[in-house]
Amino acid sequence: MEIIKGGVTAAKGYLAGGIHCGAKRKNKDLAIVHTETPANMAATFTTNVVKAAPVLWNKKIYEDGNKVKAIVVNSGNANACTGKIGMIHANTMATKTGQALGINEDEVLVASTGVIGVKLPIDKICNGISDLSDKIKHTEESADDAANAIRTTDTYSKQIAVTVMIDGKKVTIGGMAKGSGMIHPNMATMLSFITTDIKISKTLLRKALSDSIKDSYNMISVDGDTSTNDMVILLANGEAGNEEINEVNDNYKIFKEALDHINVYLAKLIVSDGEGVTKFIEVSVKGARNKEDARLLSKSVITSNLVKTAFFGEDANWGRILCAMGYSSAEFDPNQVSLHYVSDKGKITLVENGLPIDFDEDYAASIISERDIIVEIEMEEGNGEAKAWGCDLSYEYVKINGEYRT
Amino acid sequence: MEIIKGGVTAAKGYLAGGIHCGAKRKNKDLAIVHTETPANMAATFTTNVVKAAPVLWNKKIYEDGNKVKAIVVNSGNANACTGKIGMIHANTMATKTGQALGINEDEVLVASTGVIGVKLPIDKICNGISDLSDKIKHTEESADDAANAIRTTDTYSKQIAVTVMIDGKKVTIGGMAKGSGMIHPNMATMLSFITTDIKISKTLLRKALSDSIKDSYNMISVDGDTSTNDMVILLANGEAGNEEINEVNDNYKIFKEALDHINVYLAKLIVSDGEGVTKFIEVSVKGARNKEDARLLSKSVITSNLVKTAFFGEDANWGRILCAMGYSSAEFDPNQVSLHYVSDKGKITLVENGLPIDFDEDYAASIISERDIIVEIEMEEGNGEAKAWGCDLSYEYVKINGEYRT
Repeated sequence: MEIIKGGVTAAKGYLAGGIHCGAKRKNKDLAIVHTETPANMAATFTTNVVKAAPVLWNKKIYEDGNKVKAIVVNSGNANACTGKIGMIHANTMATKTGQALGINEDEVLVASTGVIGVKLPIDKICNGISDLSDKIKHTEESADDAANAIRTTDTYSKQIAVTVMIDGKKVTIGGMAKGSGMIHPNMATMLSFITTDIKISKTLLRKALSDSIKDSYNMISVDGDTSTNDMVILLANGEAGNEEINEVNDNYKIFKEALDHINVYLAKLIVSDGEGVTKFIEVSVKGARNKEDARLLSKSVITSNLVKTAFFGEDANWGRILCAMGYSSAEFDPNQVSLHYVSDKGKITLVENGLPIDFDEDYAASIISERDIIVEIEMEEGNGEAKAWGCDLSYEYVKINGEYRT
Repeated sequence: MEIIKGGVTAAKGYLAGGIHCGAKRKNKDLAIVHTETPANMAATFTTNVVKAAPVLWNKKIYEDGNKVKAIVVNSGNANACTGKIGMIHANTMATKTGQALGINEDEVLVASTGVIGVKLPIDKICNGISDLSDKIKHTEESADDAANAIRTTDTYSKQIAVTVMIDGKKVTIGGMAKGSGMIHPNMATMLSFITTDIKISKTLLRKALSDSIKDSYNMISVDGDTSTNDMVILLANGEAGNEEINEVNDNYKIFKEALDHINVYLAKLIVSDGEGVTKFIEVSVKGARNKEDARLLSKSVITSNLVKTAFFGEDANWGRILCAMGYSSAEFDPNQVSLHYVSDKGKITLVENGLPIDFDEDYAASIISERDIIVEIEMEEGNGEAKAWGCDLSYEYVKINGEYRT
């Protein structure tokens, strides 16, 4: 696997672009991604019962199993809690994009991110779509523009691209994402768009994404709130020219590994980015009963407010970590848990086989004074391993979220 | 139902007391509650897999179904994550209390609350038990002493007592509790002890408590973390002399209503008390599919960090409430939700049938500037109703929890 420059236009056959259309007061707020060769589509959508209109639009296309040729995204307004007019607006965005690109509306996916409960400025967005559709290109710069246009409160754009050799052909995968929660969570749905030129059946593409998400986006937590607009979209247009992947073979595994790399990279960037963040924390669990328990345990620890505030205060308060493991719903023997903190400053053991170690508080404090901290948890239940990523809970989080709308 | 003064000594036959024994640096830290007439016992314990030693001790007595004659409680140290020595210490507290009161150790329940992962100062506690067992009395003052002795960071003691007439006899129920989460969560397990002189079978007593808890302690949320030491204990010694309640009849209902009043009162006091709290918030759901969905919905809203910070910032950010309802796992049609804020300043409608109302921001701001706020949610799914209680998420919460151990 080689990491290369670029994002959603890195793979063959993808055009993209981003402009300012007026959905936000300033900065780019409209992006289009387009492939002339119809692409198989995989996706996951928010599990929130309150689903924004574009999520409902895309779910229908997903369930129909259509191939897809474009994605249109606006930032600045989530088109959520907007009732029937919201559905009409999502449809209008697809229709308008279809007209501008000469494709059908049911080949166009739609995404929106921004404030909830406010009608889309649909005229501005439609004018923007007309403008932008003439400007989309297969360049690194146009991928940058798109990645910037989907930002809300993200402090930087989030992109990555990799290549792998499959079946003697160079296959490229690229992606862009924007952040969730943390700063202005109603302004900040998590969106991720991945494009690739690999030739792969729809079934296998969906399997790859669905498996990959469990250990990437589903393992990050900023504040435990699941947005109304979250989605991850993966398009594969087959232009790399490899023999189509139809089964879980070595080629599938090469692709899956590259996809995992992209998703974990983008997921970690999402957590890492934000005014309120002073710490980036990885919770690594080994020896859980199984994979699912390891996920539950690591996710429970990184989601705990008490753990988060302790890290903000640089306090080696390991009791909160054991406590959060205890209510994760995973089964384990607390008397066989060992716990270590690791950073560039070193590693310290706080708990061994369930019992507190009389540790050097100064050394512990120096280890957790770093920005990047790893919490290593070792258990004796089985071979389950997982990692989860999150951040601390700071004054800034409370300040920004308390004052956001006012 | 008449509300009277007093706490755990209000009912016939209960003695109590509280002293300083040295588990805390200062203030009372050891309480005993004693009934010479053996009492039926009902209880609920933390669902956390990491259970403190006294929880394990009590669970055994609970499962054996023994009658109970005493409860001994220390504050200042949770006796949690203390391994085998912790179990020995819990046993020692029971044995010592049994010896001092002339009863068996398996008639003694034990509770501890305070720091995690530190060995109990067992000698100080044993000396304290000897001292205190001579001083316990059937007076209001001794109930006060006990209620004070179980405090950790609670800013005031929490007690209530009521009487009801059952079967021509006056039945009394009294209780005391201490707070959870919020300020120093590792220092602040939720404990609640209720004593009553009603004559009731063990089965019905346990049913009453188990049902009552669902709409009281289980409906409060401070920070979503479930402690290693939480427990609610209910003792009934039968001294009121009523005919024993053996079935769900009118007498049972009178008792259950009084018990609910006590539990809801104590649960709300727990949420209301704390340095970090600037708002007390009630979330009331009506018209959910069923009772369980109503509980899920109201609890999800009051547990959301984003909702909590919005209230701290006095921001009428209703989108976060709909979002939290959406991930509660209850099923509902977002297009049939109406949402109001209520306080002493008035009532304002923010959402009607899923659609945002163009509300007066100044009026909304004035309503949520009050300390006590009600969020009223109306749905059209069925007859399920529930209330949940919580508080805002403030700078103070982050400050205290970030700096606690240091």
